[in-house]
Amino acid sequence: MTEKRAAILLVMDGGGDRGVKDLDGQTPFQAAHTPNLDSLAKSGQNGLLDVIGPGITPGSDTAHLALFGYDPASTYPGRGPLEALGAGLDSRPGDVAFRSNFATVNDDMVVLDRRAGRDFTEEEGKAFKEVIDKLTIEDVTVHFTHTVEHRGALILRGPNLSADITDIDPHETGEKILTCEAENEEAEKTARIINKMIEEVHNRMKGLKVNQEREERGLPPANVLLLRGPGKHQNVSTLQNRFGIRSAVIAGGALYIGTAKYVGMEHLPVDGQTGTIETNFTNIAKKTIEAVETGFDYLFLHIKATDNASHDMNYEEKILAIEKTDEMIGRILERVSDKIVIGITGDHTTPVTVGDHTCDPVPLTIWADFIRSDDVEHFSEFHAANGSLHGIRGKDVMNLLLGYAGHIEKYGA
Amino acid sequence: MTEKRAAILLVMDGGGDRGVKDLDGQTPFQAAHTPNLDSLAKSGQNGLLDVIGPGITPGSDTAHLALFGYDPASTYPGRGPLEALGAGLDSRPGDVAFRSNFATVNDDMVVLDRRAGRDFTEEEGKAFKEVIDKLTIEDVTVHFTHTVEHRGALILRGPNLSADITDIDPHETGEKILTCEAENEEAEKTARIINKMIEEVHNRMKGLKVNQEREERGLPPANVLLLRGPGKHQNVSTLQNRFGIRSAVIAGGALYIGTAKYVGMEHLPVDGQTGTIETNFTNIAKKTIEAVETGFDYLFLHIKATDNASHDMNYEEKILAIEKTDEMIGRILERVSDKIVIGITGDHTTPVTVGDHTCDPVPLTIWADFIRSDDVEHFSEFHAANGSLHGIRGKDVMNLLLGYAGHIEKYGA
Repeated sequence: MTEKRAAILLVMDGGGDRGVKDLDGQTPFQAAHTPNLDSLAKSGQNGLLDVIGPGITPGSDTAHLALFGYDPASTYPGRGPLEALGAGLDSRPGDVAFRSNFATVNDDMVVLDRRAGRDFTEEEGKAFKEVIDKLTIEDVTVHFTHTVEHRGALILRGPNLSADITDIDPHETGEKILTCEAENEEAEKTARIINKMIEEVHNRMKGLKVNQEREERGLPPANVLLLRGPGKHQNVSTLQNRFGIRSAVIAGGALYIGTAKYVGMEHLPVDGQTGTIETNFTNIAKKTIEAVETGFDYLFLHIKATDNASHDMNYEEKILAIEKTDEMIGRILERVSDKIVIGITGDHTTPVTVGDHTCDPVPLTIWADFIRSDDVEHFSEFHAANGSLHGIRGKDVMNLLLGYAGHIEKYGA
Repeated sequence: MTEKRAAILLVMDGGGDRGVKDLDGQTPFQAAHTPNLDSLAKSGQNGLLDVIGPGITPGSDTAHLALFGYDPASTYPGRGPLEALGAGLDSRPGDVAFRSNFATVNDDMVVLDRRAGRDFTEEEGKAFKEVIDKLTIEDVTVHFTHTVEHRGALILRGPNLSADITDIDPHETGEKILTCEAENEEAEKTARIINKMIEEVHNRMKGLKVNQEREERGLPPANVLLLRGPGKHQNVSTLQNRFGIRSAVIAGGALYIGTAKYVGMEHLPVDGQTGTIETNFTNIAKKTIEAVETGFDYLFLHIKATDNASHDMNYEEKILAIEKTDEMIGRILERVSDKIVIGITGDHTTPVTVGDHTCDPVPLTIWADFIRSDDVEHFSEFHAANGSLHGIRGKDVMNLLLGYAGHIEKYGA
């Protein structure tokens, strides 16, 4: 009988890179001191991963859907539902969700500040939430939560909603908020609801005491919401349904938590986990070990620090993020190496020389203490090219991990 | 931000080969002196390309559609429209097009010479064109042009045409021209039009002065057209529509020009470019450099000489064609290496030991001065097998080139 193990997918966001001149042409993965990653590469299987497909530059959202074994072409709902789930809202199939900004408008709805000063306390966020969340327009209920700074997430729940609508954000100050328009007949109701909602939200927000207090402190009042990234929550089959597994996400960033929840993962919060280099790697390792030992079948671990450093074009910080991740892997292996199958990769390449996502494939290592190894000796984009996984697609990763971990039933008899 | 570059696809037609005994088992690519190709292979990415799929021997037309990023299964229109476009006719979606031969029949429509002597002057071609082109049968207009020797291209334009019809060419002299028949109900109109057209064309051609003159010179008169390769022009989305790019073809052969035009490329004529070893490689390089510098996003360069030598089973000439192409690449790199992403491959294998297309994959090298290299050091079928592109399909080549060249938008956010 095949022994069942916990499958772990560790994603170093934007981890793939190109050769860096100041590193003698090496990539950050090559230049970093990574005894644990190298050891897994050496005794594991390696390959180059086209997360979406050759030549296609993945977004973070579509990339993760693919890595979770879903075809983004049929399951990607747009950014809104993923961010809403990540922000803790209970987005459901049929809902239309958005990312939102607190903004400042004058009496003519002309935008004076698209971020209403950017800084908001938790208390302010709660006060605004109180007048927005649960608002009802016709037969549609609004769900809202404040996240960080001026940001939030908003859900519309009701029958016959559509995300095929135009933006209300003029994207420039001094311009009036735009009327939301339907891009097709099915979306007419949604556009109407949004226009009514924005008016109502403005009326409710503008007189709030917190806004008076902001103005007294010389801060712009938050008296309207701008919306972006509309998306309709699709009816996707969960990992539980597809594979009969109990799965969880351990991540700091809302988008990653949200995308994982979208396919049915639980979120396991970790004390001190953030989307930065300051995240608590030790606690992530501890939580992972705990989850393996309490019977989770699949764990998705997300490290964002590599991508932040890449967008900042800072190879030193990227190397540091990789080395801290490597140490974290060491802690996990020390405790549960005989209970797991682990896959380590990136969701896309973000070269520090470019500062943005590119289409280059990312290295993938899959390891278990029983797995047949190949000739690769180090974890890197260059070495992975010579591995036994050859070139592989993102949506095959889930099957590989769950297959080796004993969670996919024999196909046929 | 990802920098935008010109993507160049250089196809050495029939370039792939098998080991040749007289070359100590090397292929022509291995035996040729190719410092530029080897340099690109060494600092680029390499792989083996199944242009259509493993085991499938590509035709030149379907191979190029795949290399342009189209699925031949849904977009291949048959040879007619591609040849018609290549011959300079304005084939459009809905048209049915053919390749044609001038032929000689007697009064009973019995074929006496399927090529009417083969040689035709430009003036003769014009005289025949005058009585065929613009001919109207029912609501269908005929468009015709003479190309080389006895060859030409013919288009039927009108409503409800179909290419599901039988051949009128008996393929043997001494046999009567066949009646065109419909293969299904939808094609009945087209079959009727063709039968009427052939009769009318015969009546118009037979009395022409050029035919009297040909007979006076002891040449067979051209008094009918034989048709082959019927195809209906499909409604394919152009490269401009799909990728927002400006693209062009630099080729000598009509089929390659036509296939490129079919997907929306402009044709950039080059002084002295032909489909033979005598083509002006220097001028092709110059035109390429000019096109890169004037802002084309994608260029398709086609070299036919490698395939001609292969069909002639002449490895020496194939090596010469490869070496001349290599020099041409050197000229291009010297001037615009920092402005391009280049892919070099064949459309199929034509072994000099076989003299015909085979299913063997072809080598592919993709290079840009920023691209992550692999361990391959030479351009050849054998070395490419160890590259980081592994095994790849023809229709991924366009995405790879445009992806690295910055012309494909991020998928997702």
